[in-house]
Amino acid sequence: MRQDRAIRTRNLILESMASLFNEVGYDAATIAALVERTGLTRGALYFHFASKEDMARAVLDEAVTREGLSPQAFKLQEWVDLGLLLAHRLPREPILRAAIRLAVDPKARRLFGTRWPDWVALGRELLTEAKESGELLAHAEPAAVSRAFVGAWTGVQLVTEDLEEKLNLSEEIAGLYELLLPSIATPAVLAKLDLAPYRAERLLRKSCGQETPEHE
Amino acid sequence: MRQDRAIRTRNLILESMASLFNEVGYDAATIAALVERTGLTRGALYFHFASKEDMARAVLDEAVTREGLSPQAFKLQEWVDLGLLLAHRLPREPILRAAIRLAVDPKARRLFGTRWPDWVALGRELLTEAKESGELLAHAEPAAVSRAFVGAWTGVQLVTEDLEEKLNLSEEIAGLYELLLPSIATPAVLAKLDLAPYRAERLLRKSCGQETPEHE
Repeated sequence: MRQDRAIRTRNLILESMASLFNEVGYDAATIAALVERTGLTRGALYFHFASKEDMARAVLDEAVTREGLSPQAFKLQEWVDLGLLLAHRLPREPILRAAIRLAVDPKARRLFGTRWPDWVALGRELLTEAKESGELLAHAEPAAVSRAFVGAWTGVQLVTEDLEEKLNLSEEIAGLYELLLPSIATPAVLAKLDLAPYRAERLLRKSCGQETPEHE
Repeated sequence: MRQDRAIRTRNLILESMASLFNEVGYDAATIAALVERTGLTRGALYFHFASKEDMARAVLDEAVTREGLSPQAFKLQEWVDLGLLLAHRLPREPILRAAIRLAVDPKARRLFGTRWPDWVALGRELLTEAKESGELLAHAEPAAVSRAFVGAWTGVQLVTEDLEEKLNLSEEIAGLYELLLPSIATPAVLAKLDLAPYRAERLLRKSCGQETPEHE
């Protein structure tokens, strides 16, 4: 019971600090503002995290996530799912947004690095398996495609958030896959891929609603 | 003569401040650091710019540039040239890098907005002309493609700058066009497009080396 509450408090702290990173940037996010926002004492905060730096590291540790991902007939579908799941979750989860914000902040980047290399590696892994299964066109190079896609995904998120029109990130990312996949996938596989923006919601419901959850 | 020197001094100030924005972020970039970096007096700085805010606005004013662009047989080639030119110039020009840095900084974005809407509009304009000339596939929608590309371009720049490997932005952006264009261009036009990473250098030489420069 007490442990449950401790986990919830830790999450509250991390989410609140992530929101501050998003709103004012790493440098201007202070423990004083966090105290005000959470209503917790400094003692309570420091029980869970040693410092602001510690919180930034915890944010980044949650950035690379396979949550909701499950085995599919095509490895390329799993690669697509990875990006669709993140697009669905990011507008709902300040911690994921903060991980990008910290990555594009010069000071935070110097202190903590980014998780882009991990995302690129994860994508490359899935694309390499897809290639070995004959799902990719001959010239498609897993490392280069994964790198381009991690960049493109990040930038589409940043620009989508900024533009006036009320854009939906899941739709924008699905559109990005539609543009990229004809250059990557063999036609037969391409025809069988599901690029629907709302696909992620279904995947997450499946992984959460079962008797045996598939979280990892 | 005196005016020439004034322009050079203004450029020196703006480039130095842009470098500071890139290195430490908008908030931490101070006039004191600028004084140290340029060796100019506060009086000289304030002669050219009223404030740090004023400098940030001047950086963003230089962000949307058609420099080096010239009329091509295909409008789609001009759209490609726009992205290749920027990819060539950005690593060499701190002011252009700073415009992206300010756009992804929460505080600077709130104060000054970004130039993404202008880039999206410029790309949409070229793509609409390309569509009217029959260069685009029927389903390619200029507004959506331009939006996706501005996002993708931005993110590829941010990620390329960060990854350990010594990556070349022009090559990464050329690779991005290679991935996207088959979904956009009719095959006959696609075959005639020049996506070479070093194309921008040639375009810039042409526009600068002539007796009648084509700067705008």
